[in-house]
Amino acid sequence: MEFGKQLRLVRERAPLVQCITNVVTVNDCANMVLAAGGSPTMAQDVREAAEAVQSAAALVCNLGAVGAVASMLSAGKEANALGRPVILDPVAAGNTELRRRECARLLAEVRFSVIRGNASEIRALAMQERTGSGVDVSGEDAVTEESLPRAVETARLLACRTGAVVAVSGPIDILTDGDRTALLRNGCATMARITGSGCMLTALLGAFCGADPLHPFEAACGAMAAMGVAGEAAEVRRIKNGTGNATFRTDLIDAVFNLTEEELNGGVRYEHYQG
Amino acid sequence: MEFGKQLRLVRERAPLVQCITNVVTVNDCANMVLAAGGSPTMAQDVREAAEAVQSAAALVCNLGAVGAVASMLSAGKEANALGRPVILDPVAAGNTELRRRECARLLAEVRFSVIRGNASEIRALAMQERTGSGVDVSGEDAVTEESLPRAVETARLLACRTGAVVAVSGPIDILTDGDRTALLRNGCATMARITGSGCMLTALLGAFCGADPLHPFEAACGAMAAMGVAGEAAEVRRIKNGTGNATFRTDLIDAVFNLTEEELNGGVRYEHYQG
Amino acid sequence: MEFGKQLRLVRERAPLVQCITNVVTVNDCANMVLAAGGSPTMAQDVREAAEAVQSAAALVCNLGAVGAVASMLSAGKEANALGRPVILDPVAAGNTELRRRECARLLAEVRFSVIRGNASEIRALAMQERTGSGVDVSGEDAVTEESLPRAVETARLLACRTGAVVAVSGPIDILTDGDRTALLRNGCATMARITGSGCMLTALLGAFCGADPLHPFEAACGAMAAMGVAGEAAEVRRIKNGTGNATFRTDLIDAVFNLTEEELNGGVRYEHYQG
Repeated sequence: MEFGKQLRLVRERAPLVQCITNVVTVNDCANMVLAAGGSPTMAQDVREAAEAVQSAAALVCNLGAVGAVASMLSAGKEANALGRPVILDPVAAGNTELRRRECARLLAEVRFSVIRGNASEIRALAMQERTGSGVDVSGEDAVTEESLPRAVETARLLACRTGAVVAVSGPIDILTDGDRTALLRNGCATMARITGSGCMLTALLGAFCGADPLHPFEAACGAMAAMGVAGEAAEVRRIKNGTGNATFRTDLIDAVFNLTEEELNGGVRYEHYQG
Repeated sequence: MEFGKQLRLVRERAPLVQCITNVVTVNDCANMVLAAGGSPTMAQDVREAAEAVQSAAALVCNLGAVGAVASMLSAGKEANALGRPVILDPVAAGNTELRRRECARLLAEVRFSVIRGNASEIRALAMQERTGSGVDVSGEDAVTEESLPRAVETARLLACRTGAVVAVSGPIDILTDGDRTALLRNGCATMARITGSGCMLTALLGAFCGADPLHPFEAACGAMAAMGVAGEAAEVRRIKNGTGNATFRTDLIDAVFNLTEEELNGGVRYEHYQG
Repeated sequence: MEFGKQLRLVRERAPLVQCITNVVTVNDCANMVLAAGGSPTMAQDVREAAEAVQSAAALVCNLGAVGAVASMLSAGKEANALGRPVILDPVAAGNTELRRRECARLLAEVRFSVIRGNASEIRALAMQERTGSGVDVSGEDAVTEESLPRAVETARLLACRTGAVVAVSGPIDILTDGDRTALLRNGCATMARITGSGCMLTALLGAFCGADPLHPFEAACGAMAAMGVAGEAAEVRRIKNGTGNATFRTDLIDAVFNLTEEELNGGVRYEHYQG
């Protein structure tokens, strides 16, 4: 896997990424896309979402903006028609009846290139696809060595049902297109002490997929690796400077801004999963 | 008053705090809850706000989100039914007809554990409770030594009418449950040069009350003390590094992240008010 | 042009600036107003926007909040009636049918003191004013030495048609009231690598115009100069500390916070345009 190459493509092609995302982390997502070398537009008014996607290289749908699902559907269908990658972040999927229902609509009406969530969000989607109805899924948010085989199986199931690359982020990241499966072991615990780690990663997935729309698996691996390696750089800085989670958030975006292809290739802990 | 213990409870219990709050400072509020050791959810869609509160340890209603009062009412009543603390931040209460009306609805339909505002916001609510109708209250936002006795009287009145702990924040903080009254003299002037000092403090109150729901007065004292002591640490850093208000904001959240029980106990300037 | 004096007025008069602005950068805009010495209110609910403007010294309408145009119209008319300056930021004007329509409504119903955009946004508005209908305008966002004469002509046209001071921001800033035209050559390339440079500048224009409502041209020159000089200070810091775009954003606000009249007067690269 050529991680550095994926990063280079983002910087060379500077993809315009349209994010329909939640108000909590929208600023961080825009700055993260810019840090990687992309260009963000956060247009999400239902009256213009589909028109805006015509000039975008990729579309990000973040379910944290649960009130904007109509915009996601309209822009998502347009992106599908234009052959632009669409990324889904099923924030808190399965947690409420509303989110289960809105997830089901999105999966039924839009084809996604990548679906990224934590372990419990991916499990919720997979169960929903299998049973045809929303379920309340509980359990751990993060994948451990112990729960890894089952988490991989769940991710593969969702990938096969949806045709999307499925990315499960956590201490161990899982990436699968149903056929190939990769693990990434980068990042740090402080990433769970800021809001928006997941949202920013999804925005980054939009930038990487927008730069290489025909290779969503490789693009997704590149984005996840960039985030993990940047997280480690930011953690080094946090410990050295005695700062806290707020500075870590800023340093994390900076680390993507300053990340070189060599640092990415050298820092990534990647393995092909054979299970 | 055992301030450090209140902080320890937040870290031990990691309460999930649901914040229905304004878009201006929502990111800062989420990161502040995380800094303290809690876990934030910012779900505020009226179709899921009440369902979301079922898994939360506390609910924060911030009137800056004046368009989301229906969600506050629905989630607030559910929280009341479940016995979860609800915190009110009456942002700009009394400033417009809309805010006076929405405050009146909130106070009529939801029982609050803590109400936190600046001096003029608390005065607006107290007048409203007394006269039964909204009033346009002007006057100083901050309590001074001179205006202290009257501000205490107003806070006590509001506490007695509502059953809530009332917290007036400013250079001198007042905390009262109508019976006990405490003053805190921490913080710094730069806190008024960032947006969201008040909102972040209210989010922190949510975390502390969620960790110790049966002792809202003690929890509120702990949260206000933590914010004030952290503000002083951030101010030391601002002066030392020659930074400005934006870095101060980041340092303030970091300071809560790094605050120890010992620093909190050692730094707090607390007195029992005997007036 | 007395740039330092304009900054001093903001600090002396501490104008209350009401911003109806987008969720992406609303926090940065509020902190930027505070950094300059103003006081922000982000009230934008249509039920109170006009009432809120009564206590404000200036109103900022940012089309990024394209769903809040009704609030802009209501508050804008009230501000016009009260003689308070209104600033327009036509974010992505011309990019979608919705934005063209909403821009036309705003220009038809509200008188603006200052209109600030990048080159393509200003071109879109000028064409719209000339042809009476929305047009899809493409071309460069930034003014170069080569495109300068035509960009000045376009800005002057818009100034004459609307009666507003028109400010075109980019590597070369153009300011014109149709009669006088000034160029500013401050700032740095990193300003285009963060979200919200433009929005924050518009918020700053609100603060400067609110402090000197009778001199919108001088106030606008002061605000644009302050932003450019602060951008250079933040860039020095970014290079020295090896940080990235996220820290740059924070440093930019800090630089306005710490900017002195002397630094502003000494750093500005200003020329009267004679074309």
